[in-house]
Order: sequence, then structure tokens, then C-alpha cells
Amino acid sequence: MNIEARLAEFALGPVAGEGAREMMRLSLFDWAACAIAGVEEPLAAVLREKALEEAGTAQASLIGGGKVPMRAAALVNGAISHALDYDDTHFAHIGHPSVAVIPAALAAAEARGAGFEEMIDAALIGAEGSVRVGLWLGRDHYQIGFHQTATAGAFGAAMAAGRIMGLSRDAMVQALGLAATRASGLKSQFGTMGKPYNAGIAAETGIEAADLATRGFVSSPAGMSGPQGFGPTHAGIGEEDAMEGLGERWRMESVSHKFHACCHGLHATIEALKSLGLAAGEIEAVTIRTHPRWLTVCNKPEPDTGLAAKFSYRHVAAMVLAGVDTSAIVNFSDKMAKRPDLVALRSRVVVDGDARLSEMEARVEANVTGGATRIGSFDLDAPMSLDERGGKLRLKAAGLLGTPRATALWEAVRAPDLAPLTKLLQLTS
Amino acid sequence: MNIEARLAEFALGPVAGEGAREMMRLSLFDWAACAIAGVEEPLAAVLREKALEEAGTAQASLIGGGKVPMRAAALVNGAISHALDYDDTHFAHIGHPSVAVIPAALAAAEARGAGFEEMIDAALIGAEGSVRVGLWLGRDHYQIGFHQTATAGAFGAAMAAGRIMGLSRDAMVQALGLAATRASGLKSQFGTMGKPYNAGIAAETGIEAADLATRGFVSSPAGMSGPQGFGPTHAGIGEEDAMEGLGERWRMESVSHKFHACCHGLHATIEALKSLGLAAGEIEAVTIRTHPRWLTVCNKPEPDTGLAAKFSYRHVAAMVLAGVDTSAIVNFSDKMAKRPDLVALRSRVVVDGDARLSEMEARVEANVTGGATRIGSFDLDAPMSLDERGGKLRLKAAGLLGTPRATALWEAVRAPDLAPLTKLLQLTS
Repeated sequence: MNIEARLAEFALGPVAGEGAREMMRLSLFDWAACAIAGVEEPLAAVLREKALEEAGTAQASLIGGGKVPMRAAALVNGAISHALDYDDTHFAHIGHPSVAVIPAALAAAEARGAGFEEMIDAALIGAEGSVRVGLWLGRDHYQIGFHQTATAGAFGAAMAAGRIMGLSRDAMVQALGLAATRASGLKSQFGTMGKPYNAGIAAETGIEAADLATRGFVSSPAGMSGPQGFGPTHAGIGEEDAMEGLGERWRMESVSHKFHACCHGLHATIEALKSLGLAAGEIEAVTIRTHPRWLTVCNKPEPDTGLAAKFSYRHVAAMVLAGVDTSAIVNFSDKMAKRPDLVALRSRVVVDGDARLSEMEARVEANVTGGATRIGSFDLDAPMSLDERGGKLRLKAAGLLGTPRATALWEAVRAPDLAPLTKLLQLTS
Repeated sequence: MNIEARLAEFALGPVAGEGAREMMRLSLFDWAACAIAGVEEPLAAVLREKALEEAGTAQASLIGGGKVPMRAAALVNGAISHALDYDDTHFAHIGHPSVAVIPAALAAAEARGAGFEEMIDAALIGAEGSVRVGLWLGRDHYQIGFHQTATAGAFGAAMAAGRIMGLSRDAMVQALGLAATRASGLKSQFGTMGKPYNAGIAAETGIEAADLATRGFVSSPAGMSGPQGFGPTHAGIGEEDAMEGLGERWRMESVSHKFHACCHGLHATIEALKSLGLAAGEIEAVTIRTHPRWLTVCNKPEPDTGLAAKFSYRHVAAMVLAGVDTSAIVNFSDKMAKRPDLVALRSRVVVDGDARLSEMEARVEANVTGGATRIGSFDLDAPMSLDERGGKLRLKAAGLLGTPRATALWEAVRAPDLAPLTKLLQLTS
């Protein structure tokens, strides 16, 4: 059985796994918070305006209001929800599963009148599918320059949308074949509107491929794995173990959520520092140890813009020590990057690579007034209960949306139907 | 100046070159004939139905009738016009320029109220651009599995649409950057609806990229050629000479048109045989010599379907000898593949590879009753006047559409405005 047939079978199979389903619900909650907050970004206005001008049959809601064909809603909502780059990440997928898959699942569910649980199941299947496809494509695909969020994401989006649209197994294989000839997205767009747009393309491709498959469109049945298929043409390694335990074990259970509005490479350090409960006034010196790979990613020593501060160990350490909330996006401003007390504090911070640590770990040492040394460490891979995660995500959402809307959103992802969530995304309540 | 800047400048520059413009007019005529004839293909019904269901602002006409947003029209019309695979080919591009570029130029022109000559200029610029990008990507890109019609085509479509939309030079670079993160299309779709669909994707991508660029969307300014740009990630060779003489010499002047409804590899042989003016009854034996590459492409010895007959030297030779019109699609039927007199005739045909011939050449030797040998040859690269080409294209169009519609179409591509052409494509006149 080739990968297309295996994914098609999985896409239409039962969803057993309450833990995975609850994790998907948390990802949905977090995705929606990022999406609603993202609607203020400049790209949101451009894409919304374009979609509303094109208009068409009112099938699915745009974030920020308006109804358009589901294809268009998936595109716009995917891009808007990734605009802040604050959504979930899966390190095995090497991508952001929710921004590609959820917009497709939601648009298809709204268009077809699916219920909330049906939508969650489809989103989980699609997200899990995208993680598996990401594993199958492997790190080479990412390294050469493909944006796995978009490429692997398109296949997951097709699976989610196809499940809701009621595709047969054969039609699901066709949908994957169509996604194979449309899936795209380059990492060279990072730092431009092209990055969130890539997530939107993936969601749109998923809808388009599934929709055409419902209509009997014929594509290559080995569009992913066959000769000149998506994998072989896109530097995919064809990792054989990628599908191991598919339908039994859920890789989505190990998805990561961002609790801080900065580069993921900084998060273990922030948690390690917070665990020490230090006050700014008592700091003599701080040493941060992190995996060497991160030193080329997020070790800007003297950032002077909010964007650069998101990639600076020294600056975020100073923020934590000064009690500045690192989960609030507004705190990554140009002004904050230049705040004198933070600039003074960060001059006491040293960053070192340590290859004995995993990429998910950090270790900090603080010398405090009086000569004592305080040591802390954190591992992002350490287990976190769903309850604890939910609590952290609610705090994050409250920071993004205010407590009343965060609470309403929390209730909306536990409602029997999609209406409360849709209303919140439309900004009508 | 990188390739993006160079193409952007060219896209907005003057169009000097009456020969190239006349060639583009012939390609438009031929494209429209293929498109109108293609509307009977099964994929046309699926894509038209989907676009009409999605509906939206009536900006541009669908082939077969109905007006939809220009993005949707470009997608549907691109696919329909490539459904018969009877449109133009450029062997340096390694692709079909018109099916990707013309649907984008036409949709943008109709939506923006552009005149006929403005549309022709934009189509020529886009087609020339796609050929140059195809050269820049090179044969490796094609060999690894990318469908150059779709990938190089997307950039050409963006140039054509962007010119009509009045993009600035900087915005044109943005459009090319957006096309870089969307362009896709795999050769593994050949033999399925995915192949013509790829042409539609390219046309749609061009419109989408240009439209977003008009709205100030920001992408990578080196999306094609920079690190992790489209070329480096898609096995592009980055051919340095690809842009030589851009704006002065027109590669589109050497585009090829299909005058026979079968694989291009057979066309030189057909012309060589026709030049001998033989009758079926006098044939003892025929030897065909062709470039060895074609032997793996179109040398099916005993085809028993119409599709297989399109890839058979022996069968098309029999058709020519028996006086069957090889320009008529209907003659490539299952019934014709099994017609006893053709099966008998093709048993007298031998096919040999000859590496001294170019891929465009063929040589035939016929032994006729009485012991004489007749020798003919043909080179598809031999010059053909625009008048002669126009005459052949009119005959082909008459075979596809009937003489009255072919004549109306011939007049429509010389009209001052787009209305007559649009009406013909809508099948309303």
C-alpha cells in the first residue's frame, strides 16, 4: 500500500484517542485566539478586501466578517491566523499544523453544515496527516528551502476537507494527487507577507483538491510517492517510518504551543529564568546555555527593534528579569527594545552554546547580590498535563483578546455546534 | 540586476517587433480554436460547474459561457484550452506558452477593460517571459519532474496580467516573488486531468500574484533567483544566457504549432510522407528514420485505442498513406486504430532511430510497386512564413470548429476590441 492509499484510509477511519482530540481542541482554541488577534495585521486587510471584492457564494466565514466561497475563506483565514506567527508548532512535522489544516476544516464544515465534533475529528485527522507527511518529506525538504507548513500542510488540509466532504477512499487518493500538483511554498518568503500567505495557500489547496475530487476529477493516483511525484521532485527523503502506528499513536499529542510572543528557540530559557523567581535589582550576571543551533537563529545581542527583540536571548532574559510579560505581543515593540533599564540588564547576560542540551532545553545560571548562584533549567519536551496547558493557553488568549473574549472562546470550543466559534471569528460578538 | 528586476523591466517596456506580435496573434487564434473545441472534454464540465457554483463578481468570461472573477476564469480557461493538448509548444521553453499566459492576459484585459492590442502586447510579453524563464530553469527542471508549462508559465502569466493591471516595476517584482511561492505542477500528472489542470493553475497563479501586487502585498524580492528561491529549490540550472537579447530578440517567433492531432514527435514524419504524395495501393514498404529519443515516446507498434494511435509512427504513417486527415481529432478514435486497411498498411512500416537527425527532423523511404524508391524528409525547424502558417492554422481551426466559426475567429483576432473574441469563446455566437 503506497502512502497515498494509507493516508486515504486513515483520513476516513475512526478517531479513537480522547487525549489527541482534547489536544486538537486546545490547538483550535489557540489557533482562533491567534487568528482573531491577527486580523489587525496589514496583510489581513489586503486579503479580506480582495476576497470580498471577488465575492461569490456565501459558503464560509472570513475572520473579521463576511462570507465567501470556502476556497477563498480557507486562503484568507490561513494567512490571517499565521500573521502573528504565534500559533502551534510541531517539531517533527517541522511546521505549523493548525494554520494550514484548521481553516480548511472550518470552511468545509461551515459549507457542508457539519457539527462541531465532526469538524474537530477532521481537523485532528488533517493535522496528524500533515505531521506524518512532514516526517515523510523529512528535514532535507525543509533544508533545501520548502516551507513544510505549506507543503505538508496542503495534504493535511486536503484530508480534513475531504473527510468532511464525504469522499470515498478512491476520491481521497485523487484529492491527495491533486494536492501533489498544487502544493507549494518557499522558506525564502520568511520575513514577508509571503510566509503567512503560504499557510493560506495550503488551506486553499486542501479545499480545492477535495472539492474537485468530489466532482470526479482525475489525477495521478501516486501523485505523492510515485515517479516524479511530490516527494521525489521536492527533495523528500521518503522516510519509511513516517506512517508507523498511524491511527493508533497520535503525533499531534506532542504539538507545541507558544506561550511567549518570540522565537521558539527562546522559550526554554524564558521558562528556566521564570522558575528562579528573580528580581531585576539583585542580578549581577546571568549565563544562558542553549543548543548551539539556536545561536545562529535567535541570538541578536543588541536588538533595537521589536522584531529583532523576538530573536534575542539577552533581551528576553532582561524582560523576564524586569517582570515584563513575554506572552504579550505589544511588549515586543521598538520602544521596549530600547528601554534603558532593559538595555542595562541585558548587558549582564552572556549566552553560550552547549551541545549536551537538546534543542528543547535551556539552562541558566544567575549570580545574585551577595555572591549566591541560582541555577534553573527547563525542557520544553517535559510532559505537561492537558489541564496545565489549557490554563496557560487561556492566559495567553486573555493577553491577546482580553479576558471576556478569551472566556467566550474557551466555551465556544466546547459547544455542540460551530455557531459560537464562527461568531467570535467574524468579530460579531 | 537579478532576473526578477530584468523580467519586471521587460514586462513594462515597449513591444517593438511586428513579426513577434503577428506570431502571438496566430498563437491566440490557435489557442482559441483549441479552447473552443476543448469545451466538450469531461474536465471542462467539472471545472465550469465548480466555478459557476462558486460564482462571484462577473469580471471575466468562461469558455463556454458565464462570467466569474478573473482568477477563476484564468484557472478554468487555462485547463480547458489544454484539454486537447493541441495548442502551441516552444521547445526551448520546454512547454506550452499560450495555455498558461493567454487565459491570464484575457481575463485581466476583460476585467480591466483593456483593448485588443494592449492584450496582445501583454500576452506576447508574458509568453516571451515564460519561454525565457523556461530556459533559465533549464532541462534539469523538466527532467526531474516539473511541468514547465505550469511552472515557467506562472511567471509569464504574472507578467502578462501585471502589465495589464498597470503594476509599477517594484510591484512587478513582488508579483514575480508571489508567483515563486505559488508556482507548481508535476509531470507525473500526464495522462490525467491533472495535466491540463496544471496549465490552469499557472494562469490562476499569474492573476493572483499580479492582483495581490496591485494591493501592496509584500513578498521576497528575490523569490525566483535568491537563496531558497524558486530556481534553487526546483532543480533550476540558472542558465545565464536565458535573458540574452530580452526585449530585442523574440523567442516566441520560433514557437511551434501543432498541425496534426498527435504527439509532436510524429509531425516531421507526417510532413515528410505527405510531401511524397503516395497512394496506399502502391506501397510495398516504408522506412521511417527519426531521432532516437522519440523511440521511447511515440513508437507504439500496434496501437488499439485512439489515444495509443496518437503515439504511433506506424499508425500515423498508415493514416497519411490512406489519405486520413491527421489534423482532425475525431480521426484518432478507437475504431480508426483498428481499421483493417490501416492495420494492414502499418504492417509494412519500419521505424529506425538515427542520431544524425535532429529531434525536429524525419526522413522516410518508400518502396513502391514496380521497384522504385521514393525519399522524403522534413525539418520542423525549417522556416515557414507567417502567411503559410496562418493558412495551415486556418485549416486546422476549420477542422476543429467548422469553416464559418474558424473564419469568424480569424476576423476576431484582428478586431479593434475584445468583444468578438469573447463572444466566440462564450459560444454565444
